[in-house]
This record gives sequence, structure tokens and C-alpha cells, in this order.
Amino acid sequence: MLLTSPLAESIYASIKDLPIVDYHTHLPADEVLNDHTFADLWELWLKHDHYKWRLMRGCGVEEKFVTGEASPYEKFLAFASIMPLSIGNPVYQWAHMELEAVFGITDLLSAETAPAIWDQANAQLAKGISVNSLLKQFNVELIGTTDDPFDSLDDHQSLVERQHAVKVLPTYRPDPYLLQDEIDLEALKARHDYFHERGCKMSDHGIAQIPEKGTPAFNALVEIAKWNHEKDWVMQLHLGPLRNVNTRTFETSGRDSGLDTMGSWAQTDRLITFLDELNKTDQLPKTIVYNLNPNESAALCCGIQSFQQGPTAGKLQYGPAWWHLDHVPGIQEQLQLITSLSALGTHIGMLTDSRSFTSYVRHDYYRRILSSFIADKAISGEMPHNESLLIQTAQNIAYYNVKAYLNL
Amino acid sequence: MLLTSPLAESIYASIKDLPIVDYHTHLPADEVLNDHTFADLWELWLKHDHYKWRLMRGCGVEEKFVTGEASPYEKFLAFASIMPLSIGNPVYQWAHMELEAVFGITDLLSAETAPAIWDQANAQLAKGISVNSLLKQFNVELIGTTDDPFDSLDDHQSLVERQHAVKVLPTYRPDPYLLQDEIDLEALKARHDYFHERGCKMSDHGIAQIPEKGTPAFNALVEIAKWNHEKDWVMQLHLGPLRNVNTRTFETSGRDSGLDTMGSWAQTDRLITFLDELNKTDQLPKTIVYNLNPNESAALCCGIQSFQQGPTAGKLQYGPAWWHLDHVPGIQEQLQLITSLSALGTHIGMLTDSRSFTSYVRHDYYRRILSSFIADKAISGEMPHNESLLIQTAQNIAYYNVKAYLNL
Amino acid sequence: MLLTSPLAESIYASIKDLPIVDYHTHLPADEVLNDHTFADLWELWLKHDHYKWRLMRGCGVEEKFVTGEASPYEKFLAFASIMPLSIGNPVYQWAHMELEAVFGITDLLSAETAPAIWDQANAQLAKGISVNSLLKQFNVELIGTTDDPFDSLDDHQSLVERQHAVKVLPTYRPDPYLLQDEIDLEALKARHDYFHERGCKMSDHGIAQIPEKGTPAFNALVEIAKWNHEKDWVMQLHLGPLRNVNTRTFETSGRDSGLDTMGSWAQTDRLITFLDELNKTDQLPKTIVYNLNPNESAALCCGIQSFQQGPTAGKLQYGPAWWHLDHVPGIQEQLQLITSLSALGTHIGMLTDSRSFTSYVRHDYYRRILSSFIADKAISGEMPHNESLLIQTAQNIAYYNVKAYLNL
Repeated sequence: MLLTSPLAESIYASIKDLPIVDYHTHLPADEVLNDHTFADLWELWLKHDHYKWRLMRGCGVEEKFVTGEASPYEKFLAFASIMPLSIGNPVYQWAHMELEAVFGITDLLSAETAPAIWDQANAQLAKGISVNSLLKQFNVELIGTTDDPFDSLDDHQSLVERQHAVKVLPTYRPDPYLLQDEIDLEALKARHDYFHERGCKMSDHGIAQIPEKGTPAFNALVEIAKWNHEKDWVMQLHLGPLRNVNTRTFETSGRDSGLDTMGSWAQTDRLITFLDELNKTDQLPKTIVYNLNPNESAALCCGIQSFQQGPTAGKLQYGPAWWHLDHVPGIQEQLQLITSLSALGTHIGMLTDSRSFTSYVRHDYYRRILSSFIADKAISGEMPHNESLLIQTAQNIAYYNVKAYLNL
Repeated sequence: MLLTSPLAESIYASIKDLPIVDYHTHLPADEVLNDHTFADLWELWLKHDHYKWRLMRGCGVEEKFVTGEASPYEKFLAFASIMPLSIGNPVYQWAHMELEAVFGITDLLSAETAPAIWDQANAQLAKGISVNSLLKQFNVELIGTTDDPFDSLDDHQSLVERQHAVKVLPTYRPDPYLLQDEIDLEALKARHDYFHERGCKMSDHGIAQIPEKGTPAFNALVEIAKWNHEKDWVMQLHLGPLRNVNTRTFETSGRDSGLDTMGSWAQTDRLITFLDELNKTDQLPKTIVYNLNPNESAALCCGIQSFQQGPTAGKLQYGPAWWHLDHVPGIQEQLQLITSLSALGTHIGMLTDSRSFTSYVRHDYYRRILSSFIADKAISGEMPHNESLLIQTAQNIAYYNVKAYLNL
Repeated sequence: MLLTSPLAESIYASIKDLPIVDYHTHLPADEVLNDHTFADLWELWLKHDHYKWRLMRGCGVEEKFVTGEASPYEKFLAFASIMPLSIGNPVYQWAHMELEAVFGITDLLSAETAPAIWDQANAQLAKGISVNSLLKQFNVELIGTTDDPFDSLDDHQSLVERQHAVKVLPTYRPDPYLLQDEIDLEALKARHDYFHERGCKMSDHGIAQIPEKGTPAFNALVEIAKWNHEKDWVMQLHLGPLRNVNTRTFETSGRDSGLDTMGSWAQTDRLITFLDELNKTDQLPKTIVYNLNPNESAALCCGIQSFQQGPTAGKLQYGPAWWHLDHVPGIQEQLQLITSLSALGTHIGMLTDSRSFTSYVRHDYYRRILSSFIADKAISGEMPHNESLLIQTAQNIAYYNVKAYLNL
């Protein structure tokens, strides 16, 4: 699947078993700690996944069967029933990859196959699939969670104390505190220090756009960036969401319900202002910029290259295709932009950004697309047809670069 | 042509003979009623077609031979002469598809072949090609015309009374009345009701962008949308044209002369405001959004997904590639956006938006591109390689979905 | 390399040896006049090339080895060392094409191969590679330089007097004078006349965007356009750069140091206002529009088509992929836009925009991409599979059209 040539297969073979460093997720640390298990496929797949909810609505499923009062099985059946309408959609692709990887099921999901798949998968879930069995199966080495600055990080600490097989690093995400009228930078700085003691190596910021220069939010972001630089943390900027646009459904379903879209405004000028502000005093931290609207992709990817600086290769990263762009053409475009405007060999590769422990098939998905991307270019002559160089590039992107980037 | 694999050919074979439901056109109902015939290839091709005029100017043809006083044959000769410069342009592709489908001519059009083609085609036109012979040849089941709200719809009524083989439905298009200082909503509502009695099922709105919230034009559009919702009509929004930008040529040639282009402004925020306004009270009608500037494609297609709601599958449609985007890569991009951000299997497919009865080759053009799109994805593994599912998807897009969507 | 089929190879064979008309460059006329030679590969490649500097920084090279005090060999070694990280980047591709074409070196550049390549290339540079030997090798027929309006053009004149084998035409580029508070149009007009006497056929304007209507800069640009129209010159508009965004590095390295990016603002409306202003009085000159941000590509390419006018085929040109877009997908996109929205057969083709005499491999690069672009479309059925028509199209784009366009 997704491998377009023998060369692609050969590159893929060299990376498919590398460990996974999933440096940005929304996974709950307590479920790792407690080795959570799953009651059924609904809990695993549909309880929290707003990608699936959104797709179901688009296929005509009524809200009762999406976030409403229908039973878990009814909801699963509704989901299975719309699968044939959504061939080619990443939700379709991932669901089938998960069925095969986790449950060994290769049937196509539909209204007809739903009852048997429900029974088979649930039986396997009951027989011993847990968070840690999944992490082990997928060879996950590290997870970056996303945490409120005032979180105690007790679960993370417990995992460290138990010498848990998977490294679970917290990430400092102060979004709500930067929207307040009075931003308490002192308190935030204390927590930044605390997170550092607990092994944190990254901050994360999910914002519509970089705030305007001179505003308190801009200044606070600059301060945090300087703390990041001082501690050699990585700053993640997730730019572009326009959230909860459907007022009526938002009132019943709440936030993170599949009602978010990509904003259609310019990102580049403000980002450049922000980066330059920090760079003037040489306090620009390593930074990953994630973009949600493809009409800004080229400008963002190009803009950050003006701030590259040794000795870190790829100090500024144009991050992997994110959310609404996380699909085959989105990933291909991201790889192409890095190749054309930056240096592919410096890229730190994929993360899931996921709330689900079976989403690790998406690293496999990415590795297949990456392998074909490189192979296609070697075959066309855009890259040298030197297999060891191609394999080394793919391996670095799949695993080694991110370890160096995060000083792991 | 345009079929990239045996699988594509197989899918195409399953859809090529399906009837055509051309739900949005600018065809004149009276020419169907009167079974219009054509004096010559100039009348058929060049009298009204601003796509061709625009291309001719781009190839250095002087206005005399475009919209000026040259003779029909001179104009045809000028058009034929520039064809070799325009290989790959949709006008070139469609013209050759029409020559073959309508006249059985497979020569490439050029200055050299023009005289013989002129004679041969005109002879056939004289021998009995008419509007209705064309509609029959192309297996057209339904045409949606575009009509002024104050049109009597007498021609449509006569067609109904004669039980004409092709269903010709009016479309309510109130554009000029929404630009007036005082918008007479009462009169517009009366005509909306009248159109409904005459079988109308859609309104259409060709606008640079959704008007700003709070303006009379915004409020009027909201009202019409509510009428549409009440009658279960479909609302079509054609967003983005920047019209008549060439003042000097406009003064001699008038509007719809090939002087329109795509605007370069954001569409998404205002569209979302409009949809949300209607959705708050659950009065959002089924809506098709057509977009003219590809830099807004992803944001528009993604944005409307936030308002999907059962029980209609694909209640909001990201409409087919339109006007300046109606070509192979434009259609491929539209199919890709729907696949990635929505559900391909819910799509209602192609319309011509045409003023010409030979434009029906463009449904064949679309069906070929669609077949190859699906086949390529099945071959790469982005879609399951399940031929019956692929064929069912293609058939629904080519014919069945639009019938369900319009309650036909 | 870059040839995707036997048909592509066949088309390429028909254009690869055509002379080069490089109508826009930043080459120094005095180096042609004095037949400049090169001390080493650093001078040839790294002394001035901000594309390479930018890439080096992106790969973690410290400024000392980019624009700093390191020795030429150290800098070359640093550049060679990061090459494996940048496979697929145009800098990588061009460097290897230059190594092969100029020095016969086919090894891949890396830290390991750097010492031998340094020695071998430098030995050949010493043995007689000069500016004019390069121009002869690459079959360059014409160079357009880029000149200050107050330049004496003495070097150009000397080349004319010596009947130099390569035609070196000046280009009138008044950018800094249009930023002044008082624009001295009289002086600029006198120099425009002087340039015309010296064989100049083009003006060039590198601007973030067309100035707002009514401003002195807008009015001055309109005046210059009218002078161009009167003399049948071609106006080149390079739209979109955002320059020197990295303040700290700019302070040490200065302008043109790889710190420029693409702006993220709309271009189309102002350009249309400008073109229409000139066209109202039929004083619009032949114009080439170059665009730097792909999110405006379609709108710009489409917009200028509204001003096409005979008898010049392709009077307004959507210029070749420029700067940050000058790579395989960028060139493919430009060819696609012209094909879909304009007429490919009218296109005047490639220029290097380069400061380096070995950059002529980029015409070969373009010709290969062009050949594959056309062949792929013929194979898919988007263009007719008529080899002589395809070859004629390719030859016109590679060489003949620009000669007609510039009245050479």
C-alpha cells in the first residue's frame, strides 16, 4: 500500500521497523500509567475522535449517532455504514490500517461487515489489548504529551519512577493563560522551570495566528520563546485554526467536536516579525511551524528559512502536515516544500497529534508516503539514484533527526 | 483519452452511458422548445463563447476576428489558426471532442484543416443537427436553466405541457435585484413561490463574495436561503469572479466577453458567517459552493464541512471545478479536496455551466477524469482495490447522487 | 534525467541544442568584455550565490563558513558537506549538472568527495575556462543584463563595437529612483532614450507589489510603461519579494544574502488596475509578470489574460518560475497554468535570472522539464499525440518565440 515502486519498497523496508518518537500528541499520561484497556471499538475509535464525527455528519449521519444518545453499537454501525462513501479519506485509510494492524482484520468496513467486526474486535480488546500492549506493538520509544502549565505532572513523574519502557515527556502549552487580560508571566515562568525539571523539552502554542506586535499576547509569546531558548527547548507553533464555527452544534456538542476549520488569513508577516524579534538578540529557540491552510504553505516554509542558523541543522522546521492536511497529498506537499525550499535531509519527520493509541499506524502511513516520495524522485532524476544515500535520508527523517533535534 | 489504466477504462465503461443531469447551465429554454438549428460552425461555436474569444486574443487574434466585423468564416478561420498554439487548453480539448462526437471529424483543427472542416461540419448542421438531436445524442435527462426571477417561464411551461423528453427546470437567479438600494423582498418572494410552482428546485447566486453581515444584500441572501430551506431547494453560490476588468474592450464588446477573471480575496470567513447565521435556527438549505480562485479551495471545502448535518449525505457540496478551473488539473484538485476533506461518495458531480448544446462532451471529459482519479487511487492503495465499490462510487457521482440530492 | 518517456526524450532531442536567449540575468557585462576567469570553485560558486548561502544555513553551517572569514576551501568543504542533506533541492540539482557539464565530474558532492572535486575543478578552471568559453559551450546567443538607468553602458557599447559573438543587451531597471520622494521623471526619460539608443529592449521592476493607484510611484510606473509602449519595449514586473527579513544577519551580511522570502499579500487587484490604466489609452506595452508566491499564481496568470490583444501572440506573459519557485514542481506549475489559462504555444520560455555563468545548465533543466511536461500530456491524451506539433511547440518555447517577442 502506497509504495509505488520496488525502490520505494526497499526504502520502506529500511525504516518500517525503526522506533517511533511521537514528539507531539494529545495522549493522556494517566492511561499509560494505568495501562488502560478498552471496553469496545466505540471507546477505542468513536468516543473522542472528532475526525470521525465530522466525516459521519458529512455522510448524512444524524447527531444522535455521532455525539448523541445512541448506544455504542448503534454509533459504530452508523460509522461502519458510511465508510463506503468515504474511500480515499484519511479516516477511511487509517481505520482499515488499524483494523489490520491491531486486530488482523482485512475486511472492508461497511454496514454488512460491521456486526462481525464489532464482535471480533471487541473480543480481542477483552482478551488483553491495552495501552501498553499497543505502545509495545508499535515500537513507540517516546511520547510527547500536551499539558497545562499548572498540571502537577504527577503521572509523568510516576512513569519516570517506574522506569516505564516508553518515555513520556510533558509539553508546556499555555494557550488559555495568554488570552487573559493580565498575563501572569511570573507564575508561568515558575511552571516553565518546573516542567524543565520534569524533563519537558518543548512548548506548544495553538493559535489562529501570531498576535500583533506590541500586544500583551505577543510580548508573552516572546518571553516564553526566550525561556525556551535559554533551556534549549523546542517551540511548536500550530497556526491557523478557526474553531467552533457551527454555533448550534457547538452548543450541544462542545469544543473539539469536529466543528473547527482552517482560517483563511495571512500568517507569514506576523510570524516573520516574531522570529526576527527573537533573532535580533540571538534568542530564537528551535522552532517548528505547523500550518493549516495550504495557501500559506509556501510562504511559511520559505519565510522561516531566512532565520536558519548553525550549528543546528534545520533549526527551524516546517512541521508535518497537520489535521485537515494530514492525508496523502498533504504529506506529499509538505515533503515537496521542504525539499524545494529547505533541505529534506534535516527534517525531523512525523508525529500523530493524536488522542488515540491506535493512531500509530499513521507513522507507518507516513513512512510509506515518504519512501515513495523519495523513490519517485530518484527514478525521475530529481534525486540521485544512490540507494544508500536515499535510505540514510529516510532513516534520518523517520527516526534519527528528531532524536538529535530534541537532544534525546 | 484521459484513461490512465485498464481499471480506469473499466470504471469509465460503467458510467459513460449513464444519462446526464445537467443541473446548472445557461442554455436558452426557447431553443429547446423551438428545436433550434445552427447556420454554421461559427454560430455553434463562436457566436457566444467567450472562452474561445479570450483564448483567441491571447494567441494574437485581433478583435475584428473575435467580436468584430469579420465574417463568420473569417472568424472560424482565425480560431482554427490559433488552435495549434493552445494544445492542452480545455478549449482545444473540448473543440476536438465536439468535432469527433458531433461530426465524426478526427482531424486536428488548424489553418490547414479549417476549410474542409468548415464545409463538412456545416453540411452536417444543415442536414439535421438540432438542439434536440444533440440532447438525445448526449442522453441528457435534465437541464437546469438560469433565469431572472421575473421571467414568465412560459417556455419551461410549454415544455412541460408538451411532455418534452428532456426535463428543463428553471433556476431562480436574483443577482441584479440584490444590488439595488431598496431590495423588494416581497416581490422576490412572490416570484420564488411562482418558480416553485413551475418546478424550480434551485436558486443561484453569482457574487464576488458573500456580502458583509448586516448589509441589506446579506440580509436578503439570508431571507432567500430561508425560502430555499422551507421549500427544500438547493442554494448555489458561485463565488469569486472579478468582472470586466479591461475597460476599453468592455466598452466595445460588452459584458460576458472574456474579460472576467478570478478575484484574489478571502472567501471563507464571510461564507462561514452566512452559513452559521442560517444554521443557528436550523434553516440552512442544501448548498453548493463553487469557487473560482484555487487559493481558497481548501479553506472553502473544509469550512463547509463544519455545517454538514444528517439526514442528507453531502448536504453542503463543494461544487465542481468552475470556469477558469474547469480543466484536467482543476477537476482533479476538486475531486482530491472532496476525497480528503469530505466524502467522495456523496458528491453530486458535474454540470456544464454552458451556453452551448455541444458542451455535453464535457460530461464525458469529467467522467473520464473521474474514472482515472479513482483508478489511480485504487492502484496506489489510497482507495481499496474493490472494483464493485469503485464502480458504485463512480456511478453515484456521475448520475445517482444528484437525483437524490434534487429529489428527482 | 527528468525525461519521463521515450516521447519526452524525442522532444528533448529536438530542443537541447537550440541557442539560448537569456533575456533576463544579473550577469556583469564587464566580465563578458574582459573574459573573466575564475580562481577556484569558491569564486565560481560560493562568492556571490545567496541561494547556496541560504541552503547552507538551513543545514546548520555557521555563518563563518557562509559569508564569514573562513577560507575559500573551508567554505567549499562546508558546502560539499551539506549536499547529502539537500537531495532534491534545486541547488543540489544545479550543482551536479554544472559539475558534469563544465568539468565532466559525475561524482556526488559530499564531504568525502570534496577534496578531489576541488582539485580537479580548480585545475580545469586554471587551464582555460573563462566567461566566454562558458558562453560558447552553452551556445548562448543573447544575454539581457540588469542595469541602473544612470549606468554609462560603456561595457555594452564596447561589446557591440568589438562585434562580440554574444549579444549583450542592457535592461533599464529604475527601482531605487521610484522610491524617492521626488521622482525625477525627466532624467529617467532621458536615460530611457539613451538606453534605447544602446539597444535596450526591456525595462525591469522588482517590487513587493504594484504601488497603490494615485501614488507617485504608481504614476511613475505608468509613465515608464508608456515609454516602453512607445518604443515597443517589454516591461518586466517581478512581484512579491519580502526582503532582508532577518535583521541581525542582514547587519553583518548585507542585502542579497539569502535573507529574502516571498511576501504573502494579494497582487492581482493592483496589477489589474495598473494594466487597465495603460490599456484604456491603448498604451499597454508587452509585459511579463513574474510571481513569487504560488498562492497568487492562478489569479495573476488568469488576470493578465483579460488584457491580451493582437497582433502579438502572448502579449502578456506569465513569466517562468522565479527564484524560490525555480524548481521542478514550480516550473511544472507555471507550464500548467499557461496551458490551462493561456496558450502554451505562445510562451517565451526560460531565463536564468542568474549572477553566474555556469547557471546555463538551468536552460537544459528547463528544457528537460518542458519536454516531459508536453510528453506526459500527449500520453495521457490532454494534448494530441502528434509529434511534429509537440516538437514545434517545444522549439518555439525554447527559442523562437522569445526572438519574435523581442523583435530580434
